Formats: sequence, structure tokens, C-alpha cells
Amino acid sequence: MALALGVRFPARALLRPWSLLRDTTLGRSEPAADGGRGGGDGARLFGSQRVLVEPDAASGVAVMKFRNPPVNSLSLELLTELVISLDKLENDKTFRGVILTSDCPRVFSAGLDLTEMCGRNPAHYAEYWKAVQELWLRTYLSSLVLVAAINGACPAGGCIIALACDCRVLADNPKYHIGLNETLLGITAPFWFKDAYVNTIGHRASEQALQLGYLFPPSEALQVGLVDQVVPEDQVLSTALSEMARWLAVPDHARQLTKNMMRKATADRLLRQRDADIQNFVSFICRDSIQKSLQVYLEKLRQRKG
Amino acid sequence: MALALGVRFPARALLRPWSLLRDTTLGRSEPAADGGRGGGDGARLFGSQRVLVEPDAASGVAVMKFRNPPVNSLSLELLTELVISLDKLENDKTFRGVILTSDCPRVFSAGLDLTEMCGRNPAHYAEYWKAVQELWLRTYLSSLVLVAAINGACPAGGCIIALACDCRVLADNPKYHIGLNETLLGITAPFWFKDAYVNTIGHRASEQALQLGYLFPPSEALQVGLVDQVVPEDQVLSTALSEMARWLAVPDHARQLTKNMMRKATADRLLRQRDADIQNFVSFICRDSIQKSLQVYLEKLRQRKG
Amino acid sequence: MALALGVRFPARALLRPWSLLRDTTLGRSEPAADGGRGGGDGARLFGSQRVLVEPDAASGVAVMKFRNPPVNSLSLELLTELVISLDKLENDKTFRGVILTSDCPRVFSAGLDLTEMCGRNPAHYAEYWKAVQELWLRTYLSSLVLVAAINGACPAGGCIIALACDCRVLADNPKYHIGLNETLLGITAPFWFKDAYVNTIGHRASEQALQLGYLFPPSEALQVGLVDQVVPEDQVLSTALSEMARWLAVPDHARQLTKNMMRKATADRLLRQRDADIQNFVSFICRDSIQKSLQVYLEKLRQRKG
Repeated sequence: MALALGVRFPARALLRPWSLLRDTTLGRSEPAADGGRGGGDGARLFGSQRVLVEPDAASGVAVMKFRNPPVNSLSLELLTELVISLDKLENDKTFRGVILTSDCPRVFSAGLDLTEMCGRNPAHYAEYWKAVQELWLRTYLSSLVLVAAINGACPAGGCIIALACDCRVLADNPKYHIGLNETLLGITAPFWFKDAYVNTIGHRASEQALQLGYLFPPSEALQVGLVDQVVPEDQVLSTALSEMARWLAVPDHARQLTKNMMRKATADRLLRQRDADIQNFVSFICRDSIQKSLQVYLEKLRQRKG
Repeated sequence: MALALGVRFPARALLRPWSLLRDTTLGRSEPAADGGRGGGDGARLFGSQRVLVEPDAASGVAVMKFRNPPVNSLSLELLTELVISLDKLENDKTFRGVILTSDCPRVFSAGLDLTEMCGRNPAHYAEYWKAVQELWLRTYLSSLVLVAAINGACPAGGCIIALACDCRVLADNPKYHIGLNETLLGITAPFWFKDAYVNTIGHRASEQALQLGYLFPPSEALQVGLVDQVVPEDQVLSTALSEMARWLAVPDHARQLTKNMMRKATADRLLRQRDADIQNFVSFICRDSIQKSLQVYLEKLRQRKG
Repeated sequence: MALALGVRFPARALLRPWSLLRDTTLGRSEPAADGGRGGGDGARLFGSQRVLVEPDAASGVAVMKFRNPPVNSLSLELLTELVISLDKLENDKTFRGVILTSDCPRVFSAGLDLTEMCGRNPAHYAEYWKAVQELWLRTYLSSLVLVAAINGACPAGGCIIALACDCRVLADNPKYHIGLNETLLGITAPFWFKDAYVNTIGHRASEQALQLGYLFPPSEALQVGLVDQVVPEDQVLSTALSEMARWLAVPDHARQLTKNMMRKATADRLLRQRDADIQNFVSFICRDSIQKSLQVYLEKLRQRKG
């Protein structure tokens, strides 16, 4: 949905994502910008080029910020770096929860990167879709508590990241819509986007919103249960931290088993047909009609920016 | 639930429904009565004896009116003619959406025709039930956008037609109740009525309403999500047309694939056991106790009318 | 969750529960304490040591009161006696409905009896868990109308009994919380508790409440659909009776078939893996870490009481 062009990784690297960021990972040592959370001991920045991680060892919570300007489109790099950053935190016993938020103004994430889906070859589409699946599976089943601090617009793939979290806090800005609007681009959400939607807002609301490609303004998102809280924009992070505290009050083991019980069947549906889902995506996106409409859409975006 | 007696078609004709209406189809040429929608070019009436179709080629929308007085009971003829009319519109590229409404005052449809279920032979019951299934499958999976303009009472089978639509607009009249009230007649809704209910209002509300045979007044129907809008009676059709415009703003192909993704599993459940469902219905309805209670009920209705 | 210590029955007796209460069943003849319901003809008390049954033959409704002070913890005896009392009413054609309520002040039921789950041997844990399953299966699929008159706190196992009913009326007392709070004790609700929760309040609310071990105060319980009515404490029983009247207005046979249609799939999930579920429970509860945390918790409770 955005124009995040850039270097691509070879397909096989995705299977060994830990090998990818050897050079791009920035080991920073500055204190976190967010002095409000106390700075001090645990507060140091790390992460990668497109994912900024602000860990707070004292609380066991890290804030993970998407930084893929201008609109955090989910390029292959961003997807890969998100998975790596999440892996890192999951393997570090210090951390029990992660807040996902955006470092770009006014956009949480604009969703899938259309430039990854247009004018490439089938192998690239397959690689890209596998990375989309991977991010979803990792976040949806994460053993960590994930809270989405949604500080900007949150359509399509952005919404899927939010849906994978345990809890969603949305800034009360009428421009910050959230939802799965794929149909309006002439494409369809895959079945597992649908499953995540149904699990969150129910069958009927999903049926209607998915077909209409509806983007919910904050008040409606709250009402339909797509987000758990809507708060003034400057309170999104603090509210997300309060929510996090509620989730961290629960013993990890019992919470993780319960999370798995609630989500495993849905994740398994994708795991059972992961390759078929990739093939579906590739053959769909390779259609002339789809490529043409994506090109037209991208051209419009380029002109708007130019 | 009503007394719509009439000629019956042979069972095999149902398998080739296009052969049925050769003589009864009225090719009318009067302009549509609904001058508000502009009349003009595309506005001509067609349809059959019991289904009045007002097509508007310009908008790609047809209004389909049930006309089986006094209460649009779903006789075998009406079911058959509805399927044929829908088929006709689906096969005509001019049309993208259909509004389903009633031509009879105060009743959308009173539901299944009890005279089809009482005092006949098993073969007739089987034929009738197959026609009920067929209408549901065709409407539930229709590639067209279907909007129900519910301008009257909408119990049982009437509610099932409404549930098969993509969107439901109900007139705000306290007498226009909607719901699946089968249990109050001592019969049970089949599993696929239940599935459609659960998909629309959720498991708990369905469990309660189905067991109680509850008919929702408009405000409660809106609250539980059984209908999408409740509007003054004289705005039902115009609101349905506005809703239709929202659905037609979405590219057909993406919308149809999404609709199918949402509904296929539910329809497949019936398709997989369609014959068994017919046998269940026939053996249930053939029971002496059921036949007796239907006769008593019909007799009451006849006396009330007489 | 409570300290209801007492004599235990041998494991094999659970398989023939009718043999258990030969000596403990009290055949009482006093009129029901609840004079408001008229006393008179049908009103005599029967039941067992821990289950008080007040039958009203005229209305076909019995009130079943849990009497396992101080907090109606679901000891093996209470579970067994509940199943027996329910059996008795189901096999007596006089009765069509049962109201479940508490005879202990301020607590509907505190849930599973932790003393049954701590410091015993695996055979005992297996026996206990089978009894928990049995009560749930019997209540969830009961052919009778079951209405929960929740006149006190209703956590964990107490909530499961309420969820198995057809309808739930909760006293409007801010201390009477209801929900599945297992995670807060470091244990997890089994999948069929989860299924019952999802069927009642939906997937998302269950996901959140189950992980957080959230106990809903009355107003929130009503809003999320966990209970059907919240009324002043002194109107709980009368409201439950009014609700019962609505359910009894429906022909039994049609209602029972419909109830079965709504609930059979969920019950079958447990029935298919009942033994595995017992084994899961036993191996989980036998873990050193779980036994230790239960001991700590029980010790705290004992000190609080001492």
C-alpha cells in the first residue's frame, strides 16, 4: 500500500532469518527517548534498521517501534526484522511482554507492501507471502504478552498485526481507521485473515466488514470489539503499559497455556495448508487483471506523492 | 404458517425448474410503479405469478417482490418461482444486486407453508423440503448482493430468507417481529437454520432464541444484530437502496470471493447431508403427533379467517 | 478453592453413584422454607446431605440448593449428590425445570474443591476429575430447563455450573463476581470450560477473560452476556421463576431437540476425549510446582480462617 522500495534478500535467507541482519542490526547504547518510563538501568535501545526496540528490563516489557517510513508498509525487510526482533525478546528471559507501536507519524502500518506484489516473479511472491504468514504465526502464538499501541491508521496488514496481539489500544483520532479493506483494492483477504477477524469481532461483523472492505473509525472499532480501548492520542502508550500490567499480573505459564488453547486451532488451520495458501496467493497475484489494477493503484500513489 | 393452497408441480419438475414457468411467467411492459427510482429506460416489470421483479438496468439493481397473498407463505410454487427469478437475474450481466421485499401488506413472509407439510404423502414432503433447501442455498451463496427490505412480519422461513441476504433493513413497526419461532409450533428448526442464526447473532443468542421460539421486535432485532438497520416504514426501500449502493461500491469479484469464503463452510454442511436432512424432515413431519398438531393449528387459522 | 474436607467415597462408587446416598439422603417432609412460592400440595423437601431439593409438583419446577458450607466448594460428595438429585428429577415426569441456587450466604459456589486436588494420589485425582466432567455433561445436556439463580460469588467451577444452565440470573451485589479465574491460581481451565465460555460470551471475550482470569462484576457480566439478568438480591429467585415460566411455555420435545442441536457438538468434544482429559488433569495436577502452589494457597486460606 506504500512505496517502500529497497534491497531484497535472497529467498533462502528467509529460512534462516537470523543470518540476515548481521550488518544492518544496530546495537545502540543511547538511553530510551521515552524518559517517562524511567530510563535508567534497563533502558537501552536495540533493534534493527526498521525495528526500534526499547527494552525495560526492570518491568520486563519492551516497546517495539516500526520504522519503515513513510507508512510502515510491510516490506520483506520489515517483516523479517520484526520476526527477528520478536525472536530475540522471546529468547531473553528478561522479557515477558512487548508493546508494538509505530515510529512513523499518523500510521501504525499501511499494511502489505504492494511493491512486493507487483512486477516481480512468482518466486518473489512466494517468498513474500511466506514472510507474511511467518510474522502472523509468530505474533499470534507468541509466548509473550503483545499489546498493540495503535498510534495511527491501521488498515489491512497493519490490522492483522494488531489482531495478532493480545490487546489493542487505539488513539482516538478520526483519521485512524482500522480494518481489513482488501476488497476495495480488488483483492481478497486470505482465510486466516478472516479467521483472525472472526475470532475478534464475530462472524456477522466480519462477513459484512470484509466484503465491504470497511475501515472502522475508533468509536466503531471499540463498539464492534476490534480494539479494547480508545484513548486520547497522547495516552496510547501509557494505556498500553497499564494494559500490559494487567496481563503480566497473571502467571506466565497458565496464561501461555490458555493463549495456546484459544489460538492453536486457528493457527493450525494455516499451518496445515501453508504451502497451498502460498500457491493460492502466487497464482492470484500473477493474474494479469490483478497486476494491472495494482499497477494503476501504485501509479496513483506515486503521482500523489510526486 | 398460512393457507396458500394451489396447484402443485410434479416432483421432477423441481429438478428442472426452468421448465415450470413457461405459461405462468408474465412478460409485462408497464413502467415500474416505484416512480421514485426514476422509471425510464431500464424500468420494466417482469417476473412470475408470485414474484414481481422490477429491474433497474441503469443501477444494475432489481427489486423482487413476493406476491403470494395473503401472507407470502412459502408454497412450493413461490419457492420455485423465487429460484427461477433469482437465476434469471444472476445470469443477466446487467444485474449486480437484488432487493427482496414483500408485495403483501404487513407481512414479509409468514414462512413455510404448513399446507405443504400436512395431509400430504412423503414424496410431497420430500419435494417440498428440497425446494426449501434449494431456495436457501441459492440465496445464501448468491453471487449478487441481496438486501432484504423487510416491510412486514418475518417469522420462521421468512426469517431464513432474510438471513440469507447480505444485509437486512427492517421497518420500525412493533408488529413486525422477526425470528425463528419453530419450537412454539412444536417443531424444530433444521441444523442449517441454526447455522445461519449462529452466523448472524452468535451462539448464545441463537441458543436462547431458538429454544424459546423468540420473535424479536425491531429494536431488539437491531440490538442482537439480526437486522442491520431499523427505519420508518416508508423508508425501508430507500434505505435498502442506499445499503445496496455501499455493497455495489466494492468490486464484484473480490466481494464474491469473500462472500464465498465466509459462507461456503456453512452451505457445505447442508450440501454434504442434504438427502439425510430431507429424510429427517419427512420422517419428523410424518409423525402422527406432528400431523395432528399441525392440523389443529391450521384449523384454528381457518376459523380465524372464516 | 475452599476447605470442604470430609469423608471420601471409593472410586468405583462413582461409577454407580445411585449406591452412594443410601444412608445420607434425607427424605424430609417439612414444607419448603420459601413460603412465597405458596407451599401447599407439591411442596416437600427432599434431597441429600449437601443438596436440598424443594419440589413444586404443581408448577413442575424444583429448586435445588447447594448446601456445602461455608462456600459450596465442589467436593466429590457434592458433585455426586448433585448428579443424583438431577437424575432423580429427570426421571420424574412431574418435573420440567430446575432452579439451581445456593443455600450458603454470599456464595453460589466457590468452585472446585482444592483439597481434592492437593496431597492425594493420582487415582483420586482421576476420580475427582471424572466427577467434575460428569456434572458438567449432565447439566449441560439436561433435558430439563435449568435456570441458575446466582445469589453469591460464582468463580471457576461455580461459573461452569452456571454456564451449563439455560439461563442465568445474577444478584446485583458488587461482590458477586462471576467468571473463570483459573489462571490466577496458576492453573488452566480445561478445553471444555473454554468451549462453554466461548459458546456464551464469544471467542474474543473468552480469550481475554480466560487469560486474565477475569471475574466479572454483575454489570459487566450482563454486558458481555455471561448472565441474562441482573436483579436486586431479594428478587433473584422470583426472577428465576419468571424466566423458568418463559422456557416452560415451549413444548418440551421441540425445546429439548433444539437444546441438543445447540449443545451436542460441544459435549461430544469432551466425550470423545474424556479419558485423555482426565489424564491431562492428573499429570498436570501431579506436578510438583502445581502441588506446591496449591499447598501455599490452601495454607493461606486456612490461616485466614484460623
